[in-house]
Amino acid sequence: MSSERIARQFAFIIEADRLKEVFRQTLLTQSRRPENDAEHSWHLCLMVLVLAEHSNVPVDVLRVLKMLVIHDLVEIDAGDTYAYDTAGMVDQHARECIAAERIFGLLPPDQAADFRAVWDEFEARQTPEAKFAAALDRVHPMLLNILTQGQKWREHGVTLPKVIARNQHAADGAAAVWQHALKLVNQAVADGHLPAK
Amino acid sequence: MSSERIARQFAFIIEADRLKEVFRQTLLTQSRRPENDAEHSWHLCLMVLVLAEHSNVPVDVLRVLKMLVIHDLVEIDAGDTYAYDTAGMVDQHARECIAAERIFGLLPPDQAADFRAVWDEFEARQTPEAKFAAALDRVHPMLLNILTQGQKWREHGVTLPKVIARNQHAADGAAAVWQHALKLVNQAVADGHLPAK
Repeated sequence: MSSERIARQFAFIIEADRLKEVFRQTLLTQSRRPENDAEHSWHLCLMVLVLAEHSNVPVDVLRVLKMLVIHDLVEIDAGDTYAYDTAGMVDQHARECIAAERIFGLLPPDQAADFRAVWDEFEARQTPEAKFAAALDRVHPMLLNILTQGQKWREHGVTLPKVIARNQHAADGAAAVWQHALKLVNQAVADGHLPAK
Repeated sequence: MSSERIARQFAFIIEADRLKEVFRQTLLTQSRRPENDAEHSWHLCLMVLVLAEHSNVPVDVLRVLKMLVIHDLVEIDAGDTYAYDTAGMVDQHARECIAAERIFGLLPPDQAADFRAVWDEFEARQTPEAKFAAALDRVHPMLLNILTQGQKWREHGVTLPKVIARNQHAADGAAAVWQHALKLVNQAVADGHLPAK
């Protein structure tokens, strides 16, 4: 194994440390500080291990994990785009593609191509693995919003119809998980944490 | 699928959010704030995906990821034990076993038993998967310490012989990764960030 290869691998691993300082619009359940992308990615991996049985179709769990470990790395350069920021979403994919070139490009070429293919698959949301990964990626912030009494939803003027419109594609990957999340969201509406309209 | 089953799975996922507020003795490369266990666990998963080819023997990558996603959950109750805290290490495993009972016990019984078996395997460090996972778990904080000019090492009076004694079992899982880490550590000594003795 060449020492140049392992040096490139370490350079990529070191660069990834920055993901711990890209903050999201969700709050942690305890301290209520904003969550960062690295924590979010870890929590999604845990959700895969626990909830894989609820995928609409059987999935390659390793590939789902691989997608979720790397899915937000592009945000080191492109920043986090809020799920309800329709303006930011216009050029989001273009910005993230440029970031993917640079960040995955730190790896040895064979791994750069492999990681890019996994990220492209996640983004395209066509395979069962990508649909299941996307389902968890949508349900996770909903769950944190519910557990923090909808504080961030209210700050951003988010309503129940917006939550449903933005997240219901989760049902394409894991209908049972989406149904459970919907039950919790309806409770949040009943509790006055999310406006019904 | 019973609604009680998915409710238990969500209870476990919600409890796990606390791992984002268990802080370690390592600093992030950018802001220099202490790293938490959730971020650390995510970073290890990324290392697995990049460095799996360096395992001394071929490993089941999915099982390694599973170990590393869950390996620190016990610290929600037991707290983080610093790698050089020999007093804290005396009863560490006993404290963590009690935590494992409670935390994995939130899951449906079949998953609780499965997660506990994976955690026990990681702790016993006998299988190739556990040895490789442990190697990355040792190299990761070394790397962050090196990248933050050994600040935490100096605060705790850690020297090169201590670093080697505590971490050299990483070579049992991934000799090439350990060799690269050792090269970086020796550079840290040359740069005056870690006392040679």
